[in-house]
Formats: sequence, C-alpha cells, structure tokens
Amino acid sequence: MQLTRAADYAVRVMIHLAGLPPDARVSRSELSAAAECPEQFLSKVLQNLTRAGLIVSRRGNTGGFELDARHRDASLLEVVEAIEGPIRLNLCLNSDHSCSRQGWCPAHLVWAKAQKAMVEVLGATTIGELARSADDTRQKGPVTIEELPWN
Amino acid sequence: MQLTRAADYAVRVMIHLAGLPPDARVSRSELSAAAECPEQFLSKVLQNLTRAGLIVSRRGNTGGFELDARHRDASLLEVVEAIEGPIRLNLCLNSDHSCSRQGWCPAHLVWAKAQKAMVEVLGATTIGELARSADDTRQKGPVTIEELPWN
Repeated sequence: MQLTRAADYAVRVMIHLAGLPPDARVSRSELSAAAECPEQFLSKVLQNLTRAGLIVSRRGNTGGFELDARHRDASLLEVVEAIEGPIRLNLCLNSDHSCSRQGWCPAHLVWAKAQKAMVEVLGATTIGELARSADDTRQKGPVTIEELPWN
Repeated sequence: MQLTRAADYAVRVMIHLAGLPPDARVSRSELSAAAECPEQFLSKVLQNLTRAGLIVSRRGNTGGFELDARHRDASLLEVVEAIEGPIRLNLCLNSDHSCSRQGWCPAHLVWAKAQKAMVEVLGATTIGELARSADDTRQKGPVTIEELPWN
C-alpha cells in the first residue's frame, strides 16, 4: 500500500512548475533535474499529466511543458489520480467490483473510512500551496506540519 | 496504492477466527472457504500471521489454526502490517530512507498527514469488533458505517 514512484515524481514536477512564473515553459531535462527523476522514466509521467490536462506540452524550438493555468491549484489527489487512477484502498471499494461478501463484511466499511480519511487530506492540499510552502522553506528554513497554510 | 490481496485475506481469516468460540481450532481448508481464498495462496498468509504471533498453528491429527487469545483484539492495522510490513504511504516516510529533498519538500508533510489519518482509522478498529459486527449483520441485516461500534 504505497504511492507509485511515478505518482511521487508527478507531484514533484507539478510543484516545480507551480513555483515558476505563469506561462513559463520548461524542458523535459529541466523537469528531470528538478524532480530528480531519470528522463526516460519521466516521459511516461509527463505523458499522463498531459493526457489528464494538468500540464500542456508544446512542440518546436521553444517547446516544453507548461502548467495549465486552470490547474495551478490542482489538488495533490488530482495529481496522484492522474497517474494511478482513482484511489481505491482495497479492491472491494471499486464500484465495478462485485464482492460476494458485500452486505455483511464489516471490514469493507473500515477500508472505506480509512480511504476517505486519506483522500480528504490529499484533496485538501493544492499544488499551488505546496509550491508557495517550498519557496518559503527555501527562504526561511523548514516549516513544521502545524505551520502549513492548510492546517 | 492498494492493499495487497494477501493482507485482505489475512483480515478475512482473522475475522473468521475471532467469531469462533475461544480455543476453536480450524483447518486450512475451512479457512480457505471462509476467506474465499485458494488454499495454496492462503498458506503464505497463514505463515505470516503465525510468524507475527497473531495465530497459532498446531500440528497433528487434531491440528489446525487458532487465534491467539491475546490477539483476539488485534487491530486491523496490526493484521495488515503483519503481512505488508509497516504502512508507508510514500518511500520518503521510511525512517531508513534518506531523501535529498528532506528539509524543504512540502509534499513530505502531506504524505505523513495522509498516512496518519489512514493509520488512525485502521489502528482504532479491532478484529474482535469486526467479528461481532459480522455476527450482528448476519442476524439483523446490514449496518451502516455510522452504526459501527467504533463510531
């Protein structure tokens, strides 16, 4: 039960892009360095983020990747789900999965509650906030979890 | 980011055992039917639960698996971690993993908060409660999440 490396890198890319001036365009190699992710692995991540409409890919000499302005405040959840698909803590939480234990299995409800608790945290945090927090940290030093703007 | 099938089956086994009278001893094939899990796959799960001390394996003609009395009220978290090891929502939450972004990466704190929220739910629910809830449901019909004893 762990985030994929791809989703982790996607979040790193998004935070990097959200920390740049609007309309900044960044090459794949710059993103690879910023996310500390091998370029080849990052290609697939960038493809998924582009497909989800979170970033825009421009071709040509002045090409590169931009953060779609509308998605500057995408939530951490949106970014993770763009890579991994909807978060389902257990197979039985898939709406299209039929489980013969449905209707009496008490664990099902606890998986649902645990998933909700986690998803609420990820959904309440935007990439824009994380980028601002990263900037602040670089200027003033580390923040604690209590000091984060969404607490 | 999904529970392994092995952990899901381990929880099913533990709920089944916790619903039986104390000292009841159950064969692997009964557990396989109760957990709706192929016997061969279940062997590994039972091995891990035994190794973690959550169940006891008895050999011989009257052999089988028992729930260790002390672990009748093991939490859902303990059972999951007996199979998967400590829950770490992201690699950077491993205490022995050193991340070059530590100290400024704001996402780290959100992964930690999301993990805490999920772990709290799983840690607050015992197998014993789930077994009682399963019994009640079979007698009275499905319960809603609000009716669960730990809500």
